Amino acid sequence: MTTHATPVRNVLCLAGSLRRDSWNRRLLRAAVTQAPATLHLAVYEELPAVPLFDEDVEQSEPTGPAGVQALRKAIARADGLIIATPEYNHAIPGVLKNALDWLSRESPQGEVLLEKPVAVLGASSGPWGTRLAQASVRQVLHTCGALVMPTPTLFMANAGARFDPDGMLTDPAATQSLQRFMQAFWHWMERVAPAAGEPQAAAAVLP
Amino acid sequence: MTTHATPVRNVLCLAGSLRRDSWNRRLLRAAVTQAPATLHLAVYEELPAVPLFDEDVEQSEPTGPAGVQALRKAIARADGLIIATPEYNHAIPGVLKNALDWLSRESPQGEVLLEKPVAVLGASSGPWGTRLAQASVRQVLHTCGALVMPTPTLFMANAGARFDPDGMLTDPAATQSLQRFMQAFWHWMERVAPAAGEPQAAAAVLP
Repeated sequence: MTTHATPVRNVLCLAGSLRRDSWNRRLLRAAVTQAPATLHLAVYEELPAVPLFDEDVEQSEPTGPAGVQALRKAIARADGLIIATPEYNHAIPGVLKNALDWLSRESPQGEVLLEKPVAVLGASSGPWGTRLAQASVRQVLHTCGALVMPTPTLFMANAGARFDPDGMLTDPAATQSLQRFMQAFWHWMERVAPAAGEPQAAAAVLP
Repeated sequence: MTTHATPVRNVLCLAGSLRRDSWNRRLLRAAVTQAPATLHLAVYEELPAVPLFDEDVEQSEPTGPAGVQALRKAIARADGLIIATPEYNHAIPGVLKNALDWLSRESPQGEVLLEKPVAVLGASSGPWGTRLAQASVRQVLHTCGALVMPTPTLFMANAGARFDPDGMLTDPAATQSLQRFMQAFWHWMERVAPAAGEPQAAAAVLP
């Protein structure tokens, strides 16, 4: 009898704003502690090192700024990416879009979002749970050729009532939603993982 | 007989990317030279000095970083704003969204986009003329309470064929479109300018 070990998937977690104690960073920290045994999560903390995108810099320095290289390598190494986004002006935060703009480019590390499984969620102190921002982020990720998990969605509203003063997630229903979200992402990664010997993805844009 | 002098309006022009020779920067430079006598245009060149938005920085430094203050003051001084945007990943460039995120915040210079007349246009080397990016930019500007000129639109496609090697706009039809766009913006600014003694705008978001 052959036993098949359940593969453990490595997931990089990225918060879409720079604020150290943002709800979305707290949500990702909760995800790390609540992750199922099949997932190993790590929160990326070096987004402040990703500078403003500049095509002139890209031309003069094809490997990209150090902060961009580091993020590209971290994503390339991971089996999947979870993005927790705040909502700025009913849309994707500029900081996050700027990072995705860098990541969408060809580079010595490749186009690291192409064919990468990605899940998007978000938390806000208000009543809407970053619904519009998540829609923006998903649209951009699709454009980058990422494999975006379609469901379930997780829109955490009224985040202030769900964390304790130390930033720990204490709301049982939200904790359960987060656990189910991660289980679903593990299944999504299994489902879309390339089969052995499968050819590389075709060009993302057809003429 | 009383004569009424036609007022000259000052307009700040902002390109949505950092590339020095971007099509959109060239388009704005062409606008400066093609502006009607009723408009005085100036291209803002200090966007690289606007750092990544960070709420922690905003908390510790309520006046904002120097680069943000400078942009806020330039917009506050101007009667209107023209934004020429490239398109990154079918959407607003992160660099531009980041600047708008800063500008959307309350500050010692006020919320400088609130009630500000703004026109959006864009140029691309490809066939679409930044249509999706312009839609994103308009949506964000509406959220910021700006007075966005609804028509005419200007989607400059195939920009490479419309400028000479020195970056001067040489295409007659595109030049005419640009002139008509600016004339329309002057009328838009006249139309939405607050009447003398008119109360300030109400709060942008009702409870």
